[in-house]
Amino acid sequence: MFPASEDDILALVNRHFPEDHPSLSLGRGDDCAVMLPRGPLAVSTDIFAEDAHFRRSYFTPYDIGWKSLAVNVSDIGSSGTVPTGFSIGLTLTGKEDIDWISQFCEGMSDLSLRFDLAISGGDLARSSLLNICITAWGELPSALPLGLRRGVAQEGDVLFISGRLGLARLGLTVLENAVRKGADQEKKQWPDACSQHLRPMPLAMEGRTLGDFAVKKGLQDRIGLMDVSDGLARDLPRLLASQKSGLGADICICEEDIHPEIRLWCQEKGHDAAAFVFEGGEDYALAGTCPREHWEDIAELLSTFSVPFLRLGTVKKGNITLNGKGLLSSGFDHFVS
Amino acid sequence: MFPASEDDILALVNRHFPEDHPSLSLGRGDDCAVMLPRGPLAVSTDIFAEDAHFRRSYFTPYDIGWKSLAVNVSDIGSSGTVPTGFSIGLTLTGKEDIDWISQFCEGMSDLSLRFDLAISGGDLARSSLLNICITAWGELPSALPLGLRRGVAQEGDVLFISGRLGLARLGLTVLENAVRKGADQEKKQWPDACSQHLRPMPLAMEGRTLGDFAVKKGLQDRIGLMDVSDGLARDLPRLLASQKSGLGADICICEEDIHPEIRLWCQEKGHDAAAFVFEGGEDYALAGTCPREHWEDIAELLSTFSVPFLRLGTVKKGNITLNGKGLLSSGFDHFVS
Repeated sequence: MFPASEDDILALVNRHFPEDHPSLSLGRGDDCAVMLPRGPLAVSTDIFAEDAHFRRSYFTPYDIGWKSLAVNVSDIGSSGTVPTGFSIGLTLTGKEDIDWISQFCEGMSDLSLRFDLAISGGDLARSSLLNICITAWGELPSALPLGLRRGVAQEGDVLFISGRLGLARLGLTVLENAVRKGADQEKKQWPDACSQHLRPMPLAMEGRTLGDFAVKKGLQDRIGLMDVSDGLARDLPRLLASQKSGLGADICICEEDIHPEIRLWCQEKGHDAAAFVFEGGEDYALAGTCPREHWEDIAELLSTFSVPFLRLGTVKKGNITLNGKGLLSSGFDHFVS
Repeated sequence: MFPASEDDILALVNRHFPEDHPSLSLGRGDDCAVMLPRGPLAVSTDIFAEDAHFRRSYFTPYDIGWKSLAVNVSDIGSSGTVPTGFSIGLTLTGKEDIDWISQFCEGMSDLSLRFDLAISGGDLARSSLLNICITAWGELPSALPLGLRRGVAQEGDVLFISGRLGLARLGLTVLENAVRKGADQEKKQWPDACSQHLRPMPLAMEGRTLGDFAVKKGLQDRIGLMDVSDGLARDLPRLLASQKSGLGADICICEEDIHPEIRLWCQEKGHDAAAFVFEGGEDYALAGTCPREHWEDIAELLSTFSVPFLRLGTVKKGNITLNGKGLLSSGFDHFVS
C-alpha cells in the first residue's frame, strides 16, 4: 500500500517517535521545535544518500533508518558526549510504500531509543533518489566547552582506537561482490563484516566516558578524539593536524588485533591485512590521542565496554608508518573517482 | 574548471564563510561544531531539492544558495526570533564547476551576512540530483521558552499577515511557462513575482519584533505565528489548529491589497485574484493571530518594516470564508500529484 500524502507519512513517523522529550520545550509539529540546552551543544550534520552511501539492493529499509542516524550519533560521540536529539531531512522517491517507511522508522527508532534521542522534526521532499540528511546535537559538560577535538596531540602521546577498523570495508566489499555476482550466500560467510557495514553501533557512550575523564583530569586540551569515517589512513592526519603540526605516528597493527573475518579474507585474496584495516572506511570507530601517563586509566575505562579497543602506537614528528613501513594511501573522497 | 576534490569544495566554502562566530565555541573543521546557547533554541530543518523545489533552468546558482537558506530563516523567524546559525547537507551531482559553487556560496553568504549567521559545518555528498538540506537555529528570549507557535488563537482574535501572498505563486507560474514556451522575455513583465519566487526575503526581523512584543506584554501564549510556505489555504487551518479547535476565520482580501502584477495577470487570464492569493504557495510570509485589543500596537510595529502587512480578518468558530465565500482548496502536497 502506497502512502497517499505527506500527512500519512507524518502519521507513520508519529507512531514510531514520541512527539515530546525532556530536552524539548516544544516538540514536533510547529515551524520550529524548541530545545532547552543546559550547556554547550555539539552539533553535526551528515548525509546518507542512495548510491553514494548505500544501495537498496542490500540495505534493508531498517538498515537505512539505523545507519543514517548512526553516522551522526558517532560524530557527537567523538566530541565527548552522547546526543540528545536530531532532526531529519528525508527525500523519498515516492516508490516507498507504507511498509518500507515503517521499517525505515523502526531502524531509526531502535537506535534512537538506545540513546533516548528527541526527534525535533524535519522536512519531507520527493526526488528521484533517496537522500537522508540528519543534524544531531548533544549537550556537553560546561567544563568541556569545545568538546573533545582534533589537533591536540603532542609528540610522545599514545594513539588509540575504540571500535573495529577495516570490518565495515570488508562488509562493503563482500556486499558489492554479492550484488555483482548475484551470490547472496557469500554474505553468510562474513556475518560480522556485513553487519558492521549495514548496522554500525556508534560509540557515543565510549566518547562520553572519555569526555568525562578529560573533565575530571583537567585534560580538555590534551585528549584528542575523532570518529574514523573515511578510513584511518585518511582520518589520522586530521586527528594529528599533521599539515600544521608536522606530527605523524608509528603504528602497529598486529595479526591478533585483526578481526578473524578480515584475516581470513585477506589470506584468501593475498592482501596485506594490516594495510586493509588501516585503509578501512566507514569504521565509525573513535580514534584518540592522550598523554602517555594517562593511557592506563583510559585503557581501563575502555575495557568496560564490549567493543574492542587498541593502543595503536605513538605520536611522533614526521611521517605515519604502519608496522615499520611508510604510507601513501589517502582514503576515500566522494568527488574523486 | 571542475572541482577536483572535496577539499577544493571546502576551500571555496571557507572563502565565503568565516570559520568562527561569536555563537560558536568551536567552529567548522572538526567532527562537531560547538555552540554556546544562552537561552531556548528554536531549530528547524528544510530540504531544497532539484525538481522538487527548484529547477536549474531558471534558478541561478546564486538563487539556489539564497533560497535554500531563506526558507529556513523564515521558519526561525516565525518562532519569534532571528537565527544565529545553520548547518548544511549539500548533495552535488559532480557537474557543478568551481564558478557554479562560488555563486551558490555567494547567494547563501549574502543572506547569511544580513542575519549575521554562523555556518557550523555540514556534509558533502555526490548524487544524481542537487539536494540541499539546511538545519537552522535561533536563540529565543528565556521568557519565550516555546517561541511563538500555532494553535493559540481564540474566537475574535485578529488574523494578520506580514509579507506578500500569492506573488511567489505567480513567479513560479511565469517561470514555468517561460521554460515551456522558451519565452524568456515574459519574465521581464513580472519582475516582482519572479524575484519573490527566486529570492524571497525571510521575515525573521519581523518575527523577532513580534516575539519581543509578546514577551513585553505577557502574550507568549496569545500571539500565534507561523510561516506560510504551502499557501494560506493549507497553512491557515494549521495556524488555527482547526481540526482540534474548530476555529475558522472570515477573511477579506480586497483588490487594493493585491500586488499589481497579480491583479494584472489574473485579469488577463480571467482568474479570481483573491482566490489566487489565498491559495498561493512558497510565500514565506508570516501569518499571525493576536487578541483584538493588541492589533493596533502590532500594526504599528509591522509598519516600521518595508514589507507590507495586512489585517486579514477575524477568527471565529466554524469554516474559513474568503470574501464571503466558503473554501475547498487544500494547497500543495509533495506526495499527491
